[in-house]
Amino acid sequence: MPIIECIPNISEGQRPDVVAAVAAAVGRTPGVRVLDVSSDAAHHRSVLTMAGDAAGLKTAILTLFEQTLAVVDLTVHKGEHPRLGAVDVVPFVPIEGVTMSDCVALARETGRAVAERFAVPVYLYEEAATDPARRNLEDIRRGEFEGLTAKMASVGWAPDFGPATPHPRAGATVIGARMPLIAYNINLATDRLDVAKKIAAAVRHSTGGLRFVKAMGVMLGDRGVAQVSMNLTNFEKTPIPRVFEMVKREAERHGVAVLESEIVGLIPQAALLAAAEYYLQIEGFKSSQVLENRLRADS
Amino acid sequence: MPIIECIPNISEGQRPDVVAAVAAAVGRTPGVRVLDVSSDAAHHRSVLTMAGDAAGLKTAILTLFEQTLAVVDLTVHKGEHPRLGAVDVVPFVPIEGVTMSDCVALARETGRAVAERFAVPVYLYEEAATDPARRNLEDIRRGEFEGLTAKMASVGWAPDFGPATPHPRAGATVIGARMPLIAYNINLATDRLDVAKKIAAAVRHSTGGLRFVKAMGVMLGDRGVAQVSMNLTNFEKTPIPRVFEMVKREAERHGVAVLESEIVGLIPQAALLAAAEYYLQIEGFKSSQVLENRLRADS
Repeated sequence: MPIIECIPNISEGQRPDVVAAVAAAVGRTPGVRVLDVSSDAAHHRSVLTMAGDAAGLKTAILTLFEQTLAVVDLTVHKGEHPRLGAVDVVPFVPIEGVTMSDCVALARETGRAVAERFAVPVYLYEEAATDPARRNLEDIRRGEFEGLTAKMASVGWAPDFGPATPHPRAGATVIGARMPLIAYNINLATDRLDVAKKIAAAVRHSTGGLRFVKAMGVMLGDRGVAQVSMNLTNFEKTPIPRVFEMVKREAERHGVAVLESEIVGLIPQAALLAAAEYYLQIEGFKSSQVLENRLRADS
Repeated sequence: MPIIECIPNISEGQRPDVVAAVAAAVGRTPGVRVLDVSSDAAHHRSVLTMAGDAAGLKTAILTLFEQTLAVVDLTVHKGEHPRLGAVDVVPFVPIEGVTMSDCVALARETGRAVAERFAVPVYLYEEAATDPARRNLEDIRRGEFEGLTAKMASVGWAPDFGPATPHPRAGATVIGARMPLIAYNINLATDRLDVAKKIAAAVRHSTGGLRFVKAMGVMLGDRGVAQVSMNLTNFEKTPIPRVFEMVKREAERHGVAVLESEIVGLIPQAALLAAAEYYLQIEGFKSSQVLENRLRADS
């Protein structure tokens, strides 16, 4: 049974009952499970984590739009997090028995259906992007809802699907396909924030580091510990152990040791199995050798 | 849903149709799945790997005895592998949502039922042993079927359950509970067998090494590679990375590098997650953070 993860972000994080009702409606879709719902009032935003097959998720996302558009009005929405739409972003992520192309196809099919049914303009991003300038979510979202009318009228910003102007209350939506994102932090045995910032600059893609690493240096104030806080955006191409070793080496260069690391939230099994294989120099390993996987495959 | 693994060994490895019929009968038990059947003609022995809950496995093992006793006669059995019984050994292994005590209880309950129903003497071993002298399978099996009458008559060798003399054609059976066994080999970048043997002696429990490691040095003749071939009998107490690091260090002491390692057969997910946590210095990780585990837990 193929498994796709989908993590839609909606622009409502201050009314728990409203968010719960949206999640409940989505969760009733056959073949789809809602694994997590988390809301941030300051961001005025909620993130749903769901999993299912392609057909189920497409239906679930149409339900999500129907529900969200009925309760969110961006003309009166204020929050710290940048947003373009009532349903702001919808990524599809291949997890098991499914390829990235499958997720790209699903993103396009879902985007077309959303645009047709709800008259919301849709931009395709990441692996589903039709234009390299639209791969990055930040680039598409720049200007936000308030600047959207002007942006859509400018050269190169016609949407992939739907009307050429924003939906009056729901703006536009960004739909696409990407690898699972891993939130991975490394805590340093120091209270020197400058060291964490220098390491972050060394390992992250934007300033010369590894291709699929986003990083920043932050301070865990309560513990007096400097942290390299990262998002790993493609663990297959930039594996965790390579990131860890680079951070460790850069820390050494400043006379600092690694205190510990942490995985925040969910992580695909393959990312951790790959770390074990890396360090133990395991050759020829198959994930079907994991007893639990074998049990599942046979059920 | 709790998962227990059970890996019975039967003294029949030369008649594939007979083994298949036994496995099929066992596999029809509700709540039990047969994951693997492998026979060795020279050993005249077959190993079934099955998984299920306690009630299902108890029923499956009773079926296994019924089927095996009807087709195996140890008085005419000859094979390279030492054996005491037609059903030679039955280990129960805790995998998920189940403790070692649960498996010990299951071993004793199953042992009692086998003795009562089939008049086969049963010895309890490993974690289920009632006597430290009977923890090791090798100690119980020494003398084999041919020496069993004399052994059972000697002091300290009354069985835990069943008659005081061997079953005429089925001998006796060893039933118990143990941790999952991991077959783990490390290949050295050398053709020097003596180095592999010295490393094996350094890391294995019997000659002064780590508590839950069995090891020997062997030669992979076709590749000209010396190998440290190991069984890890408790990966929680003697974790894989600690074994790997010790082998690597001992190899260095002989001027030899580690070429690669390999996991043979199945391995519990926890053993590899622990290796990732060890090297990446991950703190506070829970197996429920593995996306696939989360999906399963919710289903």
